[in-house]
Amino acid sequence: MTHPDQTERVHRIPPQSGSGFSLQKGDVLVVIDPQGEQVSDLMAFAADNKEEWLSSGRTFDYNETIYLTTGHVLYSNRSRPMFTLLRDDVGRHDFLLTPCSTETFEILYPPGTAEGHPSCFSNLVQAFEPFGIQPDQIPTTLNIFMNVLVDQQGRVNIGPPISQAGQRLELRAEMDLIVGLTACSAEGSNNGTFKPIDYVVIPAAEAAHRSEN
Amino acid sequence: MTHPDQTERVHRIPPQSGSGFSLQKGDVLVVIDPQGEQVSDLMAFAADNKEEWLSSGRTFDYNETIYLTTGHVLYSNRSRPMFTLLRDDVGRHDFLLTPCSTETFEILYPPGTAEGHPSCFSNLVQAFEPFGIQPDQIPTTLNIFMNVLVDQQGRVNIGPPISQAGQRLELRAEMDLIVGLTACSAEGSNNGTFKPIDYVVIPAAEAAHRSEN
Repeated sequence: MTHPDQTERVHRIPPQSGSGFSLQKGDVLVVIDPQGEQVSDLMAFAADNKEEWLSSGRTFDYNETIYLTTGHVLYSNRSRPMFTLLRDDVGRHDFLLTPCSTETFEILYPPGTAEGHPSCFSNLVQAFEPFGIQPDQIPTTLNIFMNVLVDQQGRVNIGPPISQAGQRLELRAEMDLIVGLTACSAEGSNNGTFKPIDYVVIPAAEAAHRSEN
Repeated sequence: MTHPDQTERVHRIPPQSGSGFSLQKGDVLVVIDPQGEQVSDLMAFAADNKEEWLSSGRTFDYNETIYLTTGHVLYSNRSRPMFTLLRDDVGRHDFLLTPCSTETFEILYPPGTAEGHPSCFSNLVQAFEPFGIQPDQIPTTLNIFMNVLVDQQGRVNIGPPISQAGQRLELRAEMDLIVGLTACSAEGSNNGTFKPIDYVVIPAAEAAHRSEN
C-alpha cells in the first residue's frame, strides 16, 4: 500500500492510542488506515504560537462545505492555511464532532462504558503535553475516515467508516506545526472494533521533488 | 412583542456592533430580532474559568443534530451544560461557521469589501476584552437566526434569515457566564442589510417564578 521507499518510515499508532509530532512547512503527512474502517482524529497548532489552532469553523466557512477532500485548504483560527489536502482515497471525513472523551462515553454510550475507557481526547492530551499545549486548548478535531451523515433535518448519524485497508489521506503542511494524531477509541465510530492507524511524514524537499515528477 | 414588564430592560445592540456582559446561573437571556432577518453571534465562557468555552463540537455530538432548538442543551469544551434553549420562535440557527472577520470579507466577498468593514469577530474581541479573554480564545459562535443550509453533498449555503420582527430565542444559563453578543456585520448573512439586535436578561429568581406559572 505504501510506496516501497516509505515502508521503513511508517509509524504505527496502536489501537486506542495517539501520537504527537512536529511537521515543517512543506512536509506531507500521509495518514493510512491499514486494516480499514478505522477513524483517526487530527489536531494541529502553529509551532511558533500555540494560540493558533486548526479551526473547523474557518475551514467550513472558506471552503463552503462540511466535507473536505482533495484540493481543500484547512485554516487556523487566524484564517491562515495550515494544511492542503493533496490526495484523498476515501472522500468522507468529519470536522463536526469533538474527539471522544470520558463524557462522550457517559452521555452517548450504555451505562458502564465510560469507566477506564481510553479516548481520543485523553490520547491527544498526552500527545500535546510535551509541547506545552493544555487540554482546554483542544477544539473540534478533523476526524479522518469518520463517516458522519447529516440529513436534511440536520440530524447527525455516525455510520461505519467507508475506508478500506491501505487507503490514505495526504495533507501538506502550509506552516510549521505541532500535530496530534490518534487511532480512535470509540467503538461507535469504528464499526465496533479498534485497529491501528499508520502515518508517514514525507520531508518537504522530497515532497517537492515528488510533485515535480 | 416583549412582555410589558420587560420593555424597560431591553438592551439594544446597534447595527454592526457588539456587547459583553455577565449572566448568573438561572438567568434567562432573551435574544430578539426587532426588525427581522438579522443574525446575532453569541459566544460564552465560564465566569470562574475563562479556559472553559462554548463548544460547537460537543453540542453537535451530544444533541446529535447540527440544528439546535427548544430543549437542546449547549455544552462547554468540558462537556458541562452552559445553556438550555427554552423557547425558539424561529427554528433555524447556525453553529457551523465562525464569526465574520476581516479575512471573511477578504476571502469570500468582492475585492475592496474588507477594508474598514466592521466584523462580529472584532466586535466580540472588544466585548470580551474587559473580561481578560483573548482574541485567539474565540471559537465557532452560535449564530442565532443565521440560516445556513447544508445539502446532501455537504455544501454550505447561507440563505436570508427566516426570523421575523419580534421573534426571539430564549437561553437559560446553566452556570455563571461571560457572554459576548453581536448584531452581525456581514451583509451576506442578513439579506443585504444591517439592523440592531435586542436582548433582555431575566434574573434567575424571576425566571424561576415565571416557569412555575
